[in-house]
Amino acid sequence: MAEVTVARYLFERIQQLGVKSVFGVPGDYELALLDYIPEAGLKWRGNPNELNAGYAADGYARVNGVGAVVTTFGPGELSNLCGIAGAYTEFVPIVHIVGYPTEAAQNGNNIMHHSLGEVGDGKFDVYHKMSEHITCATTVLHNSQTAAAEIDRVLNAMMHFSQPCYIGVPVDITPKKISSASLSTPLTTTLPPNPADLQAQVINEIYQKLRTASSPTIIVDGGATRNKFLVESENLVKATGIPYFMTAMGKGAITESLPSFGGIYEGAGSVDGARIAVEASDCILWLGNYPSDFNTGEFTEKFNKSAVIDFQRFYIKIGQYTRYQLSSKYVLSALTTHIEANPLTHTSTISWDPYPAPPAPLSLSEPLSQDFLWATLGPYFKANDVIISETGTSAYGIPASSLQHLPNVTMFNQTVFGSIGYAAGASVGAFVASLENPLSPKPRRHILVTGEGSLQLTIQAFSDLLRHNTNPQIFLLNNGGYTIERLIHGREAEYNTVPVWDYEGLFRAFGGGKGERVEYYRVGTKGELIELLGRVGEGIEGSEKPRLVELMLGVLDAPASVVRASKAVEEFNTRGEK
Amino acid sequence: MAEVTVARYLFERIQQLGVKSVFGVPGDYELALLDYIPEAGLKWRGNPNELNAGYAADGYARVNGVGAVVTTFGPGELSNLCGIAGAYTEFVPIVHIVGYPTEAAQNGNNIMHHSLGEVGDGKFDVYHKMSEHITCATTVLHNSQTAAAEIDRVLNAMMHFSQPCYIGVPVDITPKKISSASLSTPLTTTLPPNPADLQAQVINEIYQKLRTASSPTIIVDGGATRNKFLVESENLVKATGIPYFMTAMGKGAITESLPSFGGIYEGAGSVDGARIAVEASDCILWLGNYPSDFNTGEFTEKFNKSAVIDFQRFYIKIGQYTRYQLSSKYVLSALTTHIEANPLTHTSTISWDPYPAPPAPLSLSEPLSQDFLWATLGPYFKANDVIISETGTSAYGIPASSLQHLPNVTMFNQTVFGSIGYAAGASVGAFVASLENPLSPKPRRHILVTGEGSLQLTIQAFSDLLRHNTNPQIFLLNNGGYTIERLIHGREAEYNTVPVWDYEGLFRAFGGGKGERVEYYRVGTKGELIELLGRVGEGIEGSEKPRLVELMLGVLDAPASVVRASKAVEEFNTRGEK
Repeated sequence: MAEVTVARYLFERIQQLGVKSVFGVPGDYELALLDYIPEAGLKWRGNPNELNAGYAADGYARVNGVGAVVTTFGPGELSNLCGIAGAYTEFVPIVHIVGYPTEAAQNGNNIMHHSLGEVGDGKFDVYHKMSEHITCATTVLHNSQTAAAEIDRVLNAMMHFSQPCYIGVPVDITPKKISSASLSTPLTTTLPPNPADLQAQVINEIYQKLRTASSPTIIVDGGATRNKFLVESENLVKATGIPYFMTAMGKGAITESLPSFGGIYEGAGSVDGARIAVEASDCILWLGNYPSDFNTGEFTEKFNKSAVIDFQRFYIKIGQYTRYQLSSKYVLSALTTHIEANPLTHTSTISWDPYPAPPAPLSLSEPLSQDFLWATLGPYFKANDVIISETGTSAYGIPASSLQHLPNVTMFNQTVFGSIGYAAGASVGAFVASLENPLSPKPRRHILVTGEGSLQLTIQAFSDLLRHNTNPQIFLLNNGGYTIERLIHGREAEYNTVPVWDYEGLFRAFGGGKGERVEYYRVGTKGELIELLGRVGEGIEGSEKPRLVELMLGVLDAPASVVRASKAVEEFNTRGEK
Repeated sequence: MAEVTVARYLFERIQQLGVKSVFGVPGDYELALLDYIPEAGLKWRGNPNELNAGYAADGYARVNGVGAVVTTFGPGELSNLCGIAGAYTEFVPIVHIVGYPTEAAQNGNNIMHHSLGEVGDGKFDVYHKMSEHITCATTVLHNSQTAAAEIDRVLNAMMHFSQPCYIGVPVDITPKKISSASLSTPLTTTLPPNPADLQAQVINEIYQKLRTASSPTIIVDGGATRNKFLVESENLVKATGIPYFMTAMGKGAITESLPSFGGIYEGAGSVDGARIAVEASDCILWLGNYPSDFNTGEFTEKFNKSAVIDFQRFYIKIGQYTRYQLSSKYVLSALTTHIEANPLTHTSTISWDPYPAPPAPLSLSEPLSQDFLWATLGPYFKANDVIISETGTSAYGIPASSLQHLPNVTMFNQTVFGSIGYAAGASVGAFVASLENPLSPKPRRHILVTGEGSLQLTIQAFSDLLRHNTNPQIFLLNNGGYTIERLIHGREAEYNTVPVWDYEGLFRAFGGGKGERVEYYRVGTKGELIELLGRVGEGIEGSEKPRLVELMLGVLDAPASVVRASKAVEEFNTRGEK
């Protein structure tokens, strides 16, 4: 094809990046654009609103690699900004495509719907300017002749920085014909190679530090996931054999099943063995450190800063003062090869239980508690599960669910940005991506763990989950309001309650005709949880019905780690800088 | 009280402006702030998410005069931007209060949740910068010593421009004590008086034009509502006795019950009599003209531009070239007084029916149609009803519902910004404001007219409507997708369908325990509509149960005016400038 439309060019490029599904909400400025989605081999998956669409694209990108979302100029794109800002913060590559009014309308003197009611120079560029703050590259395709180059520039930036980008397409530019020649030149999806001599020098420096350290450790953090050096991380862990840990954001990044796994490091929230080992370590290889409040037990970490070798996307920092501009992905790979050829001789072992069991219940009729829940949920998880958890008590609780019996899961939450409502929305995209990228003939199980206060923001996800046949297994923590916030401030305050909803009724009603085949369980006691998980955990993988399990929990009950962290949050909120 | 906290000062000021309820979603940076809401005599009305909260504040402000919404830094405020941008566009005064991290955290080097994951100079000011584009004034209270002056400056700007403002309050500034002295100086809620001589001159000029015109007319447009010169507008209409019209955005602004009412003017969408009368008029007093696409029958108006006297908030424009800086509100009042003392002598009468009835159905079992619906809905409306309608076919249809039998209703939609989902969200605030501002011992009826594609964005409003005991009467147009968009582009396209939901089930389930007492009706034929409206229309006002009426309509059925306008939209989208 010598010529293609601008829209076709754009979607071809997105398809080349591995995207199969596009999320969004139709709006009249973008309808012409949507016509070109099927012809580029993509599937349109419309969502009930843009907040859900943005989260879906984020969840999709985390599983699939890249995501795309289409909204309309004005209200549509603005309602997606929270989703885009979250993806920007957490390094999730999403293309945000926005259907614009015609060029003539933008330059004219008519007041168009979805505009701010103003006309004149640049008034149609306001939303674009707002998005510039939360994307790594933007363009509005005002000219079809430069459209291909602009699309390539912005998509290349997205892949380079692993952050969202913004592409505005005016209605009348959409069908304009342009040369397809550049489509045969692939976009740049990998980082440029490192300078060989610098890489060799740094690998030697790291190796010497490792070799001479008495108690070296590895921490796999969220940045390892977000920067896609998980295989390299796992290989390094295996090659070194030294104790390794994950953070809250890193949970699920690589397997926990190796004997050198020491647990989750989250400062004061850690189990003692893990905390002591990390904080006594004299050489910490920290893979993708992202030291936000929620990822550090609210800044309660106390490791030796000069012992850290920090592996980031674009640099490696050794100690506190030396920084090398290198892509960590390549360094990690070469470092592992070097270690395999020159094995380390450390013999440290893990002498503690990374997941100490909570006290056994005296009676199975005891009310369900969070600590019991998380400990009990671990064994229910299976290989290849896709598990999405929410900010709030779920995010703090799920690190305490052991994955030591599993070779592989996909698990994430939005640890840094921490927008409640994210998990349900993102689960739609994550589960769709899982269906499109089968690991085996059996579909993976799709598990969402969220709280009712969070779910209320994006409950429309119930519809998408059922509409797209994702067979969701939903664990809904119902504790009568925003428990995480009660623990921070306003324990008894009315503002921390949420209205009572009939979640079973909602799950069925959002399913339309599909609502009849869903399962619902309400769990109030420890015994009921054991019984239910024992039963449904035995189900044949992939044959599960969509299932909602409502877990009735105490208003102020929370995992021990969240209780500690919430205290630190309120102190921090009151006092400020640590 | 000699000293008050910064939070108390802020809420006292808001209370002084007539606000009784504050909407929003709790978040940890704002929890300390929420503690001060009750002590300032305000009621907190939390919403399931920020999109709904922003719309609720908008709907509240349209009925109450001013609205307020509180969100948290980052995700919370970003999810509210669509609501704020709509209020900016449509001149709705809302305070957007945002709970910020502490000053120390903003100036420090820790990565806080809800931030963009970046630290350093100004990184915490990014969201504030984004909001500057869609508000008339902003501040972040970095210093308690200037907080009172800053709050007053920003709230005064909101009242002056009748647009949203933004006030950020860091957690640690919230409880700081400041002088309460300035609280006794009222905020400026009215516009400054006009220069007397200029006003007299302009009134004389307008009067002479009116007196010598052969066929003068008045058009009451949305700006009359938004700039609060409705009483002045109605008095002018009465004093002159000349034919008057409303626009789509002006619908419901003043009574339609006077004999000089000529109908709705919306260009080619108008009934012939109205269109011919306006377009032949040689002197048009246009009160609050807001000529957006949706408010002009997609720019199909063909009146004599030099005949227009355009009354805006801050100026009056006579013909195409003369503009006086005057507040229209005062000019209208004085002009009416002048006319009452010097009556006009025009004797034009309305010779057409502003609401021609659609053909009577041959059989009551005919499927319901939009034209029949709107004509039939008119007589159902009663005095004092609060009626909120949605963008889409509802917005185009409801102008065809006669209000000629009524002295007074409150009716609006978001005509210019046109964000779907707005109506359900805004109805929450509008109905709450109605409950708080009783016109008589009987509560007003609360009517929401929306489509299912729109409702899907903000269906959480079902919960708020029931939680706050607003007794909503909901008319839900179910036509299997985005009909308005089908008419514009993609008549058969899959992207214009929406998933099938069980709306009765949702209405009940969102109500929790209150779900049992709601009523639900499904209407598929003209006969069923007549029967239902006859029955429920006779109910005692205020004693209605919450009621959902699902109206089953054809996928491509739409009022005649929307069919015409959608064609014009697609032409405009393709061709551009008119």
